[in-house]
Amino acid sequence: DSIVLSQSAISPINIALIKYWGKVEDTLIIPLNSSLSLTLNTDDLATRTTVYLSKDFSQNTLVLKDHPSEFSKRLERMHEVIRSKIPEDGITVGDAKLSKQDLLEMKAKVVTENDFPTASGLASSSSGLACLALCLSKAYGCDMGMEEISRLARLGSGSACRSLFGGFVLWDRGFEDFKELEHDLESVDNKSRAVQVRDELFWPDIACVIFVANDKKKETSSTDGMKTSVETSEFLKIREKVVVPKHLEEIKEAIETKNWPKMCEIIMKESNSLHAVCLDTFPPIFYMNETTKSIISLVHELNKLHSEPVGAYTVDAGANCFMITKKAYVDTLVKLMADLSHLNEDVINKYDFGTFPESERFDIDSQKADLLREQFKDKIELKRIIVTSIGGGVKLV
Amino acid sequence: DSIVLSQSAISPINIALIKYWGKVEDTLIIPLNSSLSLTLNTDDLATRTTVYLSKDFSQNTLVLKDHPSEFSKRLERMHEVIRSKIPEDGITVGDAKLSKQDLLEMKAKVVTENDFPTASGLASSSSGLACLALCLSKAYGCDMGMEEISRLARLGSGSACRSLFGGFVLWDRGFEDFKELEHDLESVDNKSRAVQVRDELFWPDIACVIFVANDKKKETSSTDGMKTSVETSEFLKIREKVVVPKHLEEIKEAIETKNWPKMCEIIMKESNSLHAVCLDTFPPIFYMNETTKSIISLVHELNKLHSEPVGAYTVDAGANCFMITKKAYVDTLVKLMADLSHLNEDVINKYDFGTFPESERFDIDSQKADLLREQFKDKIELKRIIVTSIGGGVKLV
Repeated sequence: DSIVLSQSAISPINIALIKYWGKVEDTLIIPLNSSLSLTLNTDDLATRTTVYLSKDFSQNTLVLKDHPSEFSKRLERMHEVIRSKIPEDGITVGDAKLSKQDLLEMKAKVVTENDFPTASGLASSSSGLACLALCLSKAYGCDMGMEEISRLARLGSGSACRSLFGGFVLWDRGFEDFKELEHDLESVDNKSRAVQVRDELFWPDIACVIFVANDKKKETSSTDGMKTSVETSEFLKIREKVVVPKHLEEIKEAIETKNWPKMCEIIMKESNSLHAVCLDTFPPIFYMNETTKSIISLVHELNKLHSEPVGAYTVDAGANCFMITKKAYVDTLVKLMADLSHLNEDVINKYDFGTFPESERFDIDSQKADLLREQFKDKIELKRIIVTSIGGGVKLV
Repeated sequence: DSIVLSQSAISPINIALIKYWGKVEDTLIIPLNSSLSLTLNTDDLATRTTVYLSKDFSQNTLVLKDHPSEFSKRLERMHEVIRSKIPEDGITVGDAKLSKQDLLEMKAKVVTENDFPTASGLASSSSGLACLALCLSKAYGCDMGMEEISRLARLGSGSACRSLFGGFVLWDRGFEDFKELEHDLESVDNKSRAVQVRDELFWPDIACVIFVANDKKKETSSTDGMKTSVETSEFLKIREKVVVPKHLEEIKEAIETKNWPKMCEIIMKESNSLHAVCLDTFPPIFYMNETTKSIISLVHELNKLHSEPVGAYTVDAGANCFMITKKAYVDTLVKLMADLSHLNEDVINKYDFGTFPESERFDIDSQKADLLREQFKDKIELKRIIVTSIGGGVKLV
């Protein structure tokens, strides 16, 4: 009777290029608009989760970095949906046959860990929930495709649904017209999930450099922030109606045609649009600090120096700045940023993208470097730089 | 033949409560939307201008704080419009009779000075142009009402037109429909001018405290900034169509009914909306720094502590923060801000609004003050505090 089922998975984080901001249904986490993200490589940032199922457990427990706690409401909801999908005739594990009833009598213990730098403000919960959705659904023997599992992950933490896939991922909001929310919420709930736009091998030139800001202040949680935005921001309405649909079409086209300058432009405009909405929220929400703003100005400066954009910044609900760039540009960028922020090498992760001929690199002459050093003196305070690339979605291990 | 005509005036600055951002016609300075401002007291901040007209001058000269320069293009344009309004039968000055031709042969020398703290980033040009429009039109003997002179001031510097009047002032953009700009620009040019909504005596309780930020960075000029916003910001369109018309109606109603909480709310939302547009501009424009943002957060905190809002912040194209408050609250606010920013008393101007009974004041108990001191420690860096009140418009002296 003391059978313990277990299932492990590893999950990436994803960075939204077209941002998710605002829910139209809070419990089910139906987003105001569709969003699109880039999945990052689990070699550099990953959440590892193991789910144990047993009748011996007295309650559902989540152990996060050695700290046990009860399931949150959202996690409980996701768990219940998964249990409702247990196959009618049970499952077979090795020699053991477990009935549906056996499985329903089990409780779950979830052990999850991530290798993100402590207090880096990186989206650990979304990565964790993606991992968990996959582990739980597999452990209970549910017969579900990745898109269905993506919907489950969404119930746990909205943007988690995008970590199910690698490469460029679209989270379709699940409805065309707001009326559908009233008339057929169940169908919207089923349709609001992620799909892969292009896999992680499609555009291998791309890298992502994360500038982890040295921020001490407690930030408005994105859940609270977007709720207030929905209630108070006039600009959020036009984001939903005009800006996001336009940016989505444009970025899908830019990805498909590998139009790097266009993609960079959309990424930056989207990020600015999100933070403009935060500022238009009442009371206003400020996520970007002086460091974030200086990096943004710096990226615009750098993009003027090269024959094509060196990269695009994108900022979530925090002060960290993600720079989408090309592998060929990373060395120069990291060196410059470490220099400008007086950062020690030991807080920059190891990476190896190979070497690139001069014609493909982006170099800054020493005179220009001096000017940048002068312009951004004491303005960029970083805690860490994480260099990574595009990666695959959550995987069983 | 060496007659020198002279005319002097003193002009206030005005602070926009409903912001002007964006031109639909650059040369004539026709604004994208109407705006509404509060004229501040010339006892505390003023521009003094004297215009000399003489045939002996070889060219038009502007002497600003002892630095002579040629007229700018805009000033030249304003000057030409004024000269086109010289009375057909000339003017009489003392015993001398000057023909229209005499006047047209004269050149102008303008000497202008202001008592704003050096490099405070306060809108000196708009105050100066209001002064100049009045002086020049009077010196040339033009028969014009204040609203017509306001239109002239607009040609020199858009927001200058609002300094012609005291109290609450509306700058009507001059058109209902964009088609008028194509079909009858001349009429729009004539209608785009300021009118007084309520004079400086209407709501005497109000005070304005200007927190001059200690900002070193060179800012995007508002002329350049709004041009880029018009070209790139999707949110600016909705500001013109929806947000500003709504805020204008609401604030006019709030002024008329002296609805202080409502007025404060609109002022703050408007300011946030402007800076959200700046952030939505591409590349984004950042005017607010950490100090500005901290003052904004502080005002929201303070407003929770009292039975009515203690005040409203409003920020123009710079890091300075204007707080619209009540005279009864000024002592406490100034003391708190000087404390939080470690400001010396000698950079706070003298003011005397009398004393107020405890029931009308806003007091912060020492426990709360400690919490605020903790929360805003090292976050507010001020150069100066200027306390002022509502004042009258530009005046001949």
